[in-house]
Amino acid sequence: MAEKLTPKGMKDFLPDEMLTRERVMEKIVSVYRLYGFRPLDTPALEYVSTLKAKSGDEIAGQIFKLEGEEIGLRFDLTVPLARVAANSALPKPFKRYCVSTVWRKEEPQKGRMREFWQADADIIGSKSMRSEAELLRVANDAIVALGFRKPLFLLNNRKVMDALALKLGFGEKKDTVMRLLDKIDKIGMPKVRYDVETLIGKEGADELFAILACEGSNAEKLGACAKISPEAAKEIEEILANCDGLDVKVDFFLVRGLGYYTGPVFEIKLSEDIGSVGGGGRYDNLLSLYGQADCATGISLGIERLMYLIKEMDGQAGPGRKTYTDVFVASLKGFYAQAAGIAGEFRKAGIACESDLNERSLGKQFDYANSLGIRFVAVVGEKEAKEKKVTIRDMQSGKEEMLEIGDAIARVRAK
Amino acid sequence: MAEKLTPKGMKDFLPDEMLTRERVMEKIVSVYRLYGFRPLDTPALEYVSTLKAKSGDEIAGQIFKLEGEEIGLRFDLTVPLARVAANSALPKPFKRYCVSTVWRKEEPQKGRMREFWQADADIIGSKSMRSEAELLRVANDAIVALGFRKPLFLLNNRKVMDALALKLGFGEKKDTVMRLLDKIDKIGMPKVRYDVETLIGKEGADELFAILACEGSNAEKLGACAKISPEAAKEIEEILANCDGLDVKVDFFLVRGLGYYTGPVFEIKLSEDIGSVGGGGRYDNLLSLYGQADCATGISLGIERLMYLIKEMDGQAGPGRKTYTDVFVASLKGFYAQAAGIAGEFRKAGIACESDLNERSLGKQFDYANSLGIRFVAVVGEKEAKEKKVTIRDMQSGKEEMLEIGDAIARVRAK
Repeated sequence: MAEKLTPKGMKDFLPDEMLTRERVMEKIVSVYRLYGFRPLDTPALEYVSTLKAKSGDEIAGQIFKLEGEEIGLRFDLTVPLARVAANSALPKPFKRYCVSTVWRKEEPQKGRMREFWQADADIIGSKSMRSEAELLRVANDAIVALGFRKPLFLLNNRKVMDALALKLGFGEKKDTVMRLLDKIDKIGMPKVRYDVETLIGKEGADELFAILACEGSNAEKLGACAKISPEAAKEIEEILANCDGLDVKVDFFLVRGLGYYTGPVFEIKLSEDIGSVGGGGRYDNLLSLYGQADCATGISLGIERLMYLIKEMDGQAGPGRKTYTDVFVASLKGFYAQAAGIAGEFRKAGIACESDLNERSLGKQFDYANSLGIRFVAVVGEKEAKEKKVTIRDMQSGKEEMLEIGDAIARVRAK
Repeated sequence: MAEKLTPKGMKDFLPDEMLTRERVMEKIVSVYRLYGFRPLDTPALEYVSTLKAKSGDEIAGQIFKLEGEEIGLRFDLTVPLARVAANSALPKPFKRYCVSTVWRKEEPQKGRMREFWQADADIIGSKSMRSEAELLRVANDAIVALGFRKPLFLLNNRKVMDALALKLGFGEKKDTVMRLLDKIDKIGMPKVRYDVETLIGKEGADELFAILACEGSNAEKLGACAKISPEAAKEIEEILANCDGLDVKVDFFLVRGLGYYTGPVFEIKLSEDIGSVGGGGRYDNLLSLYGQADCATGISLGIERLMYLIKEMDGQAGPGRKTYTDVFVASLKGFYAQAAGIAGEFRKAGIACESDLNERSLGKQFDYANSLGIRFVAVVGEKEAKEKKVTIRDMQSGKEEMLEIGDAIARVRAK
């Protein structure tokens, strides 16, 4: 056997963690569906030419390629969506969700593996800022449905930087400037500012940082923005107008890593210590690389970071569930068939239920139920079989009663 | 752009098909959970040494390997499970489910792609045939929950062939004989029989086929089996004794492709024209290759074949759903904010709902709702906004009414 069991940056998800992951994924999917997003899935593998079309150098170097083939594992869910949408005649706007795996060959770090999961919602074929607002609302609702407080959305527009680059004359260096700004959280503002000055001169940097750092309400920031790019200001304003009740903050420092954004960009903050739990933006030029051009915008939630925060939240309320099972039907020797029948009755009532598979003693069966934190144990022995009843024990209260199966089902349902 | 959009043997799943796939996957998962199976997920990528440990030559040649790494994409969900279970201290029996993707680099054929989905249920750490019976029952219930009639299970035991090979003296050629028998559906009985005769001689082949082909009830077949391998017969008998109400047929010709089976094997038939929709068996020796030895048995349902049969079934009842959306809230110019508010009310009531994102005319909004087969359209204009109502139209009956939102919700719920 290999010394390590799983490849670098990849891990197994044991049941305890999977119950959390399934909860996160299923809740997000249910909210995406509530907003009318439709599922679309694409292969894990794409032609490398598809993946590299607009990924930028950094991501291009992180693609896992197959041996002897010009195909590789997808690094996000947006590029495959753009490929599909540019080659199909779906009714527009096409609202799509996908909760699936992506792979990036980068140095693994805390909370960032080489295999990870994203929950994306995208809208293809809508120019209107109503779409951006809807993405923020659906993400907000999904996060609240998971039991969190309302998240903070940071909102910017790529057009602000476009206009500043033009005005301050650093057009060719724009991408480098943005890459530097994206590092503020990692290396700190003074170092970033120093590097930007070195790149575009002190005068330009002074003016750039004065505008980016403007303080005040969203309205005040939009006032400053309108002088640089009226179009960017108008778009942000329209988004804000449709985000009633959401916590949105305009932040001109917000960059977002990927190369394909063209307009509004956003990021979702839920906790100081874990960075963003998601983000997205408009990518109006991406589809044209793969076929029919169309405008597009999307948002992506990071499953692992949400799982991490859920576990923190759950931690305060005791350990999470280990199984979906509500009832373990224990049987005395010779009464397995009856126990299996009782288990079938619970299942018919929609109650998740196990019975003994290993011909164990009653004590061992209780140990097993305990080890999984199963709430109820129903015992079937001679007396129960004769009276067509079960003895049901609430493992939390220790209370035990012999009941007819219908009453036992009602008892379990009540908890 | 590449001429083909997706790599060979891989395809996109557009929303219509995804709604079916999600239905199949979610229903199977819900039944697996009802039986107390717990989720466990492993990386898509494994060390090649892990994958090849017991895969057999045929499968080993079908592994997609990564460039410059000794890792590759998993070809099934059983091998990764065996690796995890052999290296962890989970309470036993460990009942696990996983619905996920596997990849095999084989020549794509009808209904068999290079990327496909499996829904597995496995039981680690139980020697008892109760476990096999539970696997057949959970698979039966999942298939019935999908709307199909009860499937037919074919049941055999590898120990029958082991005993025959010993008795008839073709021990070294056993695997080759099984590979030939596995081709009966493809190349026909006479050709297989001819090849087996060539391999082990006419006399041996006569005796072999006489036993394998024995006709009659399960009891009669078990009688014949008991003379060859009393242990195999006893195991099959125990499975049958715990499969009351299921349609199980003993079939000594059943082989199953994979190399790791050691005891009972089974296959699930639902339709004459599509082969099996799943199968499985006991693999008591697999875990020892990866760490701690333990016994194990499992079943796997093929998602694509079930989808194919679901579409056939749906086809008789008209086209399937295109979206989860129940209500489209159409708005007249200037009333989008009100429409978005109404949409929010529907969603709070758990009703999937969309509103117009593209500032379209009312006619275009109705066209969109029609193209997705959305059942209800709720219109919001001046009159509705003033009276705090919506005009709701049932697109099936054409009936239209102006209602308060609570009544509109009740109307939609009633359908």
